[in-house]
Amino acid sequence: MKMKVAVVGATGIAGQQFLATLADHPLFEVTALAASGRSAGKPYIEALKDKNGSIGWWCEGMPSRDFQGMVVQDASRLEAADFSIVFTAIESDAARELEPKYAKTTPVISTASAFRMEQDVPLLIPGVNSGHAALLERQRKERGWKGFVVPIPNCTTTGLAVSLKPLQDAFGLERVLMTSMQAISGAGRNGGVLGLDITENVIPYIPGEEEKVQQETQKILGAFEGDHVHPTHFPVSATCTRVAVLDGHTEAVYLSTSRRASVEEAAEVLRGFDGGLSGLHSAPERMIRVTDDPFRPQPRRDREIDGGMCTVVGRLREDSALDNGLKYVLLSHNTKMGAAKGAVLVAELLHKEGQIR
Amino acid sequence: MKMKVAVVGATGIAGQQFLATLADHPLFEVTALAASGRSAGKPYIEALKDKNGSIGWWCEGMPSRDFQGMVVQDASRLEAADFSIVFTAIESDAARELEPKYAKTTPVISTASAFRMEQDVPLLIPGVNSGHAALLERQRKERGWKGFVVPIPNCTTTGLAVSLKPLQDAFGLERVLMTSMQAISGAGRNGGVLGLDITENVIPYIPGEEEKVQQETQKILGAFEGDHVHPTHFPVSATCTRVAVLDGHTEAVYLSTSRRASVEEAAEVLRGFDGGLSGLHSAPERMIRVTDDPFRPQPRRDREIDGGMCTVVGRLREDSALDNGLKYVLLSHNTKMGAAKGAVLVAELLHKEGQIR
Amino acid sequence: MKMKVAVVGATGIAGQQFLATLADHPLFEVTALAASGRSAGKPYIEALKDKNGSIGWWCEGMPSRDFQGMVVQDASRLEAADFSIVFTAIESDAARELEPKYAKTTPVISTASAFRMEQDVPLLIPGVNSGHAALLERQRKERGWKGFVVPIPNCTTTGLAVSLKPLQDAFGLERVLMTSMQAISGAGRNGGVLGLDITENVIPYIPGEEEKVQQETQKILGAFEGDHVHPTHFPVSATCTRVAVLDGHTEAVYLSTSRRASVEEAAEVLRGFDGGLSGLHSAPERMIRVTDDPFRPQPRRDREIDGGMCTVVGRLREDSALDNGLKYVLLSHNTKMGAAKGAVLVAELLHKEGQIR
Amino acid sequence: MKMKVAVVGATGIAGQQFLATLADHPLFEVTALAASGRSAGKPYIEALKDKNGSIGWWCEGMPSRDFQGMVVQDASRLEAADFSIVFTAIESDAARELEPKYAKTTPVISTASAFRMEQDVPLLIPGVNSGHAALLERQRKERGWKGFVVPIPNCTTTGLAVSLKPLQDAFGLERVLMTSMQAISGAGRNGGVLGLDITENVIPYIPGEEEKVQQETQKILGAFEGDHVHPTHFPVSATCTRVAVLDGHTEAVYLSTSRRASVEEAAEVLRGFDGGLSGLHSAPERMIRVTDDPFRPQPRRDREIDGGMCTVVGRLREDSALDNGLKYVLLSHNTKMGAAKGAVLVAELLHKEGQIR
Repeated sequence: MKMKVAVVGATGIAGQQFLATLADHPLFEVTALAASGRSAGKPYIEALKDKNGSIGWWCEGMPSRDFQGMVVQDASRLEAADFSIVFTAIESDAARELEPKYAKTTPVISTASAFRMEQDVPLLIPGVNSGHAALLERQRKERGWKGFVVPIPNCTTTGLAVSLKPLQDAFGLERVLMTSMQAISGAGRNGGVLGLDITENVIPYIPGEEEKVQQETQKILGAFEGDHVHPTHFPVSATCTRVAVLDGHTEAVYLSTSRRASVEEAAEVLRGFDGGLSGLHSAPERMIRVTDDPFRPQPRRDREIDGGMCTVVGRLREDSALDNGLKYVLLSHNTKMGAAKGAVLVAELLHKEGQIR
Repeated sequence: MKMKVAVVGATGIAGQQFLATLADHPLFEVTALAASGRSAGKPYIEALKDKNGSIGWWCEGMPSRDFQGMVVQDASRLEAADFSIVFTAIESDAARELEPKYAKTTPVISTASAFRMEQDVPLLIPGVNSGHAALLERQRKERGWKGFVVPIPNCTTTGLAVSLKPLQDAFGLERVLMTSMQAISGAGRNGGVLGLDITENVIPYIPGEEEKVQQETQKILGAFEGDHVHPTHFPVSATCTRVAVLDGHTEAVYLSTSRRASVEEAAEVLRGFDGGLSGLHSAPERMIRVTDDPFRPQPRRDREIDGGMCTVVGRLREDSALDNGLKYVLLSHNTKMGAAKGAVLVAELLHKEGQIR
Repeated sequence: MKMKVAVVGATGIAGQQFLATLADHPLFEVTALAASGRSAGKPYIEALKDKNGSIGWWCEGMPSRDFQGMVVQDASRLEAADFSIVFTAIESDAARELEPKYAKTTPVISTASAFRMEQDVPLLIPGVNSGHAALLERQRKERGWKGFVVPIPNCTTTGLAVSLKPLQDAFGLERVLMTSMQAISGAGRNGGVLGLDITENVIPYIPGEEEKVQQETQKILGAFEGDHVHPTHFPVSATCTRVAVLDGHTEAVYLSTSRRASVEEAAEVLRGFDGGLSGLHSAPERMIRVTDDPFRPQPRRDREIDGGMCTVVGRLREDSALDNGLKYVLLSHNTKMGAAKGAVLVAELLHKEGQIR
Repeated sequence: MKMKVAVVGATGIAGQQFLATLADHPLFEVTALAASGRSAGKPYIEALKDKNGSIGWWCEGMPSRDFQGMVVQDASRLEAADFSIVFTAIESDAARELEPKYAKTTPVISTASAFRMEQDVPLLIPGVNSGHAALLERQRKERGWKGFVVPIPNCTTTGLAVSLKPLQDAFGLERVLMTSMQAISGAGRNGGVLGLDITENVIPYIPGEEEKVQQETQKILGAFEGDHVHPTHFPVSATCTRVAVLDGHTEAVYLSTSRRASVEEAAEVLRGFDGGLSGLHSAPERMIRVTDDPFRPQPRRDREIDGGMCTVVGRLREDSALDNGLKYVLLSHNTKMGAAKGAVLVAELLHKEGQIR
């Protein structure tokens, strides 16, 4: 018997990615789709149509037949208690309102940023800071919820934090500087990046993104002690840009380690990183893959490795401008590991750890 | 009476940019075009044609009528003594062979990398290190030449060095880390980047580029003392990537200043930078323009400012990961300021300073 | 003394193109800018700013200083009588309401489609059907207006009609089939094409476009007799697609002529086409340029010829599938000749012919 | 026991596509890889490396482990008699020399154009003109070969011919006019389309392509009588352009049927087209899929349907400019159905029909 789950924000692009991931999932069965009032009451396939009758389904192929006829519910009236998990893919404002309602009875796994920086909310990347899940006890107690809210990080944070984790553990980190070249899918379709803006161009600013990357990385890599997560002492500084790539965020990273590490030692540590996720359905075969091909990683060619759940690291080399400096380029799939599929992996982890039943 | 100049490598894309720049130039008149033996003997317009009769002219419009009928000479037989300047736009191997021959009698201004790092060769960016031209006396004497060779820097170095110069002068620099997002025109057409490789993609490696940026920047910003240029003590570290942009290199810069500088102070210094180039025909109205629009600079929208000769700096802000840290994004036109037009500006400077007569 | 003109819809992309065209115009001086109530009351430069302070000016450089401080008026309250011309760049619904109000007192030149197919409204392309301006007398009389409304055609119609006109005159036309590859600027910024949709893609449908091209071409090339324009007897069939090009519509045309014409005869007729526009400020040097280079026209390389006002025809050859068949590829700049600059050319023509005083 | 096959031209992009298709094929086992002398003698994975050590494998993931260590043979010395089939993916000049040598003993299935228009050579699209295989008897007899050469058509011909076949059968055809928007993968990597040429552009000419499409379509859809294929009486006219798409050729088709057909009748005929390929491993589930979504087919979103082996037809509508006119837009995957995978499908068909043993 699979667990019943609901997907809220099911008509949006992130919600569709939840459905693509959850079709035929061995643990979870989607038994409800919810969205804003505008879509409520329509069969899902109808809710996806625009005025020209064109179906706005942005994942591969078509939505599973199981979902096509399912009637979309109004998110504000969803009976969360009927589900083992509510996955939410909604804007931050809506999340702030709806997620606490659902969490009264039910675990909520969210792609929204609304609760990421709250003191009693773990910001989970399975395999990186799985232990932060212990914060959920505090969250439940303080808020008086039976369920909880676990957000996943910003898609640009994820690959960075994954790649930093084994280096932090092995050598310590003193400072991290990162420049991203982000895919346009990160901006979504609603108010998304115009072709007129991004074609043959680079846009050197993504509002709010750099602050998120900086704070979230420090929280994710911070130590859990007592019932607190202490952000890392080392600073993280980011420059986030947008390039004409569909999927896959590329990040050029510079960092100082606490103890000097050679390129070979760092490569070995990255290659050896094992998040302890074996057995989880959506987990990558390897958390990190290190390539020696100097022309890789490339977003178009490498983003689908391990089902888009792996962080690919290349161009690992010494950096001469920082003390104990290393530099590398990483690639992380922003709409798989960095979004819905990453959120499903969180659910699989929490299920394994008994937080979801 | 204008000075007679020759353009060597005239059929290539960089050579064409020389011709586009030199058409109707107030000081210089192109009286000879030279290229490899394959093109020699043909009228210029014929030398540009491929087997389908398609004219491979890659600048705007068509080549000036003055050039169309000019018969292309064999570069290896060019009588350099007939010209006041030889501008070269050739591969490094060819440059190593031909430029010393020309320099016996004639000043050579080159876009090739062959001689950039030689001890007696200044690597000039007018307005940034004009004083390094004093090295030419040593070059002439040591090599026994009447002329000389002056290369311009790699196109990725130029904008970086321009933006660093006023900060170095005002506050001192301790370290510089840069990630570039470079235009495909930088790779030229001969062995250039394939559409299959760059469309919807980022290529995180450009062979040799990072080393050039690091070494050249240190040389350009180094002090001229006695008859030597001493590279800067501060290190420069680069990650150079290629993106789907036609022209204009975008660079995300992080740096530590020696004396703490606020964002406002740094902006003032950048805005106030005056290279002393007024009166030079190809000089930009301003060496540096600082924009407050957080979404700028963008290569497609900003590369043509001041005829492609200006460095546009945006997103200037404090950097929390470095001591006295600042970060910004710059844009420099790689095939104008960073190539032929920049080389013509060097010629204008050397003419003004009496090095070219 | 220049004529005073107003630009309505001045903050949109088409309105901006009017301002770029009219800055320093020898005949017309923009003395009022109007837009929707949301922008009204703000200095123009402020009205262009978004919430991040980024200036949404999409033409080259910056708006003329003359316009930057001009306070934007509410389009619904514009006193049209104060101007010699009102140029409108607004949506069709707004045009249907506002343009008749302005036309009571003042000539209106419009980029909107609202009135294009009305019986008493000429659809003017200067040089192609200048004579249709005679319809204005009927329009004034029937509607009781002192002014009039003259729309320009859809941007995809314009290049097609220009290229057909001399062939129609010389040989007669029996049928026309056209497939377009249209630039994304044609869709504007408001509800414009997303980068996620057009990157590495072709979209084979543009709602309403094919019908417009078919009907408008037949009207433009139709005969003016008495006080009617009779649409051409020959049919026009179009397939309109969108490609990842910023500006410039490419169209592959197949046609049957009434009298057999060789490729050479057709080329001569196209080359010789003189629209009688000499003396008009915005007119191209040539209405049509015919290229022998089989790889041209290309939108990126050829769209700016003659200031974007010329139709470039290439690949002219016999067509074996139609009787008296010819085929060719044309390029027309959709946001210059096909939009505001084309509308200004209409105004120049009507001024010369005494319809605007 | 699988049949042993060789792939010639195995290091090129089309050869790689053969390997990707043939890995784990139920009937065929690749036991030899051949290429030019330059690659001969190297393990396959080494032969793919460039001077930077970067592996030039352009299909998904990595080559099958079975192939990585296989030593590449010199194509000019391949012992064809050792194989049941030789698949060739080589340039036309090489094909003209090598394929007759292989065919003396062995069936050759080729992506090259060298023999396509020979009188005794069938140009096969399984399901469209399977019966033309009967020509092989004549070919064997006339040339004195034990094997034969069967080329597949040009990738632009394939989708067109597939879509025309059921319409020809049901209604007859009088004329066909087609404009293509072709992917850059069609030009390959060797002398392929430069990013500088195709980015933000359309190139309106592909040398030789239009003639191939016209002649090949007439041959494929021609009648086999006695021992001849008679090309169709109806003419085919093409305009072939290149757009910034990676894979998937989009074609806008106009045609006249002999008997009038409504849009509904034509759609039904297209939908009902059954090539009789059931049971063939590489065959699509449906030869043709007809979409009602006016915005489809789109190359990026639809090219992978049915493993890239299906022709997707959309925008089917009446055409007013031709007698009994219909028009539609089709999409065909140029490097799957239009190349190696299509060639493997030919081999599967010929095996089923007993031509290959």
